Amino acid sequence: MKTQPLILRKDQERRLLAGHCWTYSNEVDTQATPLKSLEPGQPVEILSSHQRWIGHGYVNPHSLICARIVSRDPNHPLSPALWLQRIHDALTLRERLYDQPYYRLVFGESDGLPGLIVDRYGDLLGVQITTAGMERARGEIMAALEQVVRPQSIVLRNDTAVRALEGLDQKVEVVLGSPSDAIRLVEHGLEYTAAPLTGQKTGWFFDQSENRARLARYGVGKRVLDVCSYIGAWGVRAAALGAERVSCVDSSESALAHLAENAARNGLEDRIDRIQGDAFEVLRALRDEGRRFDTVLLDPPAFIKRRKDEKDGVQAYQRLNRLGIELLEPGGLLVTSSCSFHMGRDNFLRTVQQAGRRAGRSLQLLEVGQQGPDHPVQPAIPETAYLKTLFMRALPAF
Amino acid sequence: MKTQPLILRKDQERRLLAGHCWTYSNEVDTQATPLKSLEPGQPVEILSSHQRWIGHGYVNPHSLICARIVSRDPNHPLSPALWLQRIHDALTLRERLYDQPYYRLVFGESDGLPGLIVDRYGDLLGVQITTAGMERARGEIMAALEQVVRPQSIVLRNDTAVRALEGLDQKVEVVLGSPSDAIRLVEHGLEYTAAPLTGQKTGWFFDQSENRARLARYGVGKRVLDVCSYIGAWGVRAAALGAERVSCVDSSESALAHLAENAARNGLEDRIDRIQGDAFEVLRALRDEGRRFDTVLLDPPAFIKRRKDEKDGVQAYQRLNRLGIELLEPGGLLVTSSCSFHMGRDNFLRTVQQAGRRAGRSLQLLEVGQQGPDHPVQPAIPETAYLKTLFMRALPAF
Repeated sequence: MKTQPLILRKDQERRLLAGHCWTYSNEVDTQATPLKSLEPGQPVEILSSHQRWIGHGYVNPHSLICARIVSRDPNHPLSPALWLQRIHDALTLRERLYDQPYYRLVFGESDGLPGLIVDRYGDLLGVQITTAGMERARGEIMAALEQVVRPQSIVLRNDTAVRALEGLDQKVEVVLGSPSDAIRLVEHGLEYTAAPLTGQKTGWFFDQSENRARLARYGVGKRVLDVCSYIGAWGVRAAALGAERVSCVDSSESALAHLAENAARNGLEDRIDRIQGDAFEVLRALRDEGRRFDTVLLDPPAFIKRRKDEKDGVQAYQRLNRLGIELLEPGGLLVTSSCSFHMGRDNFLRTVQQAGRRAGRSLQLLEVGQQGPDHPVQPAIPETAYLKTLFMRALPAF
Repeated sequence: MKTQPLILRKDQERRLLAGHCWTYSNEVDTQATPLKSLEPGQPVEILSSHQRWIGHGYVNPHSLICARIVSRDPNHPLSPALWLQRIHDALTLRERLYDQPYYRLVFGESDGLPGLIVDRYGDLLGVQITTAGMERARGEIMAALEQVVRPQSIVLRNDTAVRALEGLDQKVEVVLGSPSDAIRLVEHGLEYTAAPLTGQKTGWFFDQSENRARLARYGVGKRVLDVCSYIGAWGVRAAALGAERVSCVDSSESALAHLAENAARNGLEDRIDRIQGDAFEVLRALRDEGRRFDTVLLDPPAFIKRRKDEKDGVQAYQRLNRLGIELLEPGGLLVTSSCSFHMGRDNFLRTVQQAGRRAGRSLQLLEVGQQGPDHPVQPAIPETAYLKTLFMRALPAF
């Protein structure tokens, strides 16, 4: 069966030729190739208005991003062989970089598998499918994952709101094995449990793993504040690095209960305080009590989820960072993150710097961490870069 | 003796209030405070047009950057006590981060000491003074360095062309002790000698130390190409990480001779080839011979020294990177650097990505390294951030 063509309007191939893989619906020549004649997820061959062949991909007539390229090799269409190759390439990278099997195994567009996320928790794979194209190939993808990785269980974490943009339903399904929702993982020498079926997002924030490891280099001092602690990945590490007291702040009672288990698992429960509440309110209260810390860790959820939230989100980042800086001892360490794609690196740095000036401090930027190498960035696809983690020393203003 | 004021023109204080420390000559109210009445290097107190006090600094009426702020505390003017405090703060950071005394101890503006660079090679300090203000305080600065660090020798590497912008002469002087020009240093477990009196810049590129350490994580494979190798900091490390053959390319015969010594010092001379020649010509020849490498390291000198060189410089980076990528095996590692301030991070990434497309490869960006934390960035002073090192995997285009 011949693959359907998808023909672009005049001069709309530039982004794709530069390496991006997305086409928007207003870039398609709908006279030549009506979108409504195509089914969600259907494979297509994308051509320029001059019939230049660009790539194999898949389409979704109901989505703003109406097609994504998966292969630029005419002889390598969407097929079980392609999935096997891509998953194999992804695994090769992770096996080169990680000595234990806990990482993001597939990071969508950056691994040539747009619409597919796979996290590996040892023998369990947590999979998230975010496009109709990948949904259509779901059976083949599962088979390829089983063949390449040989997991004991696979969970589909398809409970993400982005699926609605593609007309897909939201649910969690176990598609292989009988996985536990308390799965052990090891991150740079510490043991935790994560909740791959019910935890936030896909259960564990592998993207911060390298940045957490960097704490060892900088040292955390005696008193640490861990803001938006979730289940303790940062806070337990700070305690393991020798902090005498780590105060972990989160709005979720159940996350803090889980954090206590993770602390106990590493014999560090005596060093950890849990404070349940809104991060802004808790930080203001600590400041007003005159509490001070040697290290402040800020890892909030994305304050800018959509472009239109930018102004409010920037203000929220500035307020949170100012509070965090005000709580630092002179010479203290600020480790501050933004996972908002719409908060660019330079904007985030400027926002934190301004927070520092308002707090009366000069900040020395020691390092900028990104998402770890199991979340590679495709430089032609800016949307694949989202995490920024700044390591800064706060001194009296000079 | 009262410090002279330097009054800014209306609305010219914004950059300074945002945390930058430079004032340009066209921002000064020369009616109120004629620049020609001030001596190069003379201390001043900088005020806005509304007499708002901004900071203590120093002036140079002959330079485009006519004043730099050193202190924002009215009670803390330029004085031996200030130098002691700043150098102490700088040392505190490095002692926290480094277990051996080989690092940049003072990084100018970022350490609140504009115009001063100090590299530490154990008991030897290599100092570079780039402004008339610091030149005027030279005696006090040397005394403060001796008091805080207690070095055996101090070398002034004042042979940099930027001194001409401040009307300063260019020469190398020994101001303490009898230092050798073959000084041993240890970088992440390897031993090298550097040439603090006669080597390029200040003798050793401490700024890349962290990025070289990162090679261990990524692995280098069997065959490595080290382009612009200088005295072997990268190449010897690649050999130590297990590469069977490291081909080091440099235009300088003497740098390659020094590299051979550094290889022998670590017992790695059998694994290292030296190729003397122009990087572009050597890479073209290797490509045309069909040579391929598992890792290509590109660490050229700045191709964009001044803003007006930008266009040519970007092209040079693109040509060099395309050649480097063409020499990689599929799945190989590219570690590519730019130390040009005028080549911004995003521009460099775009340039390398385009080189990848022209070479028919998709690049996965695994990490972006910067200058190490002994070269902290002052976020309010963009000029303090200059080094970008991209770690990328090259795959067939997808």
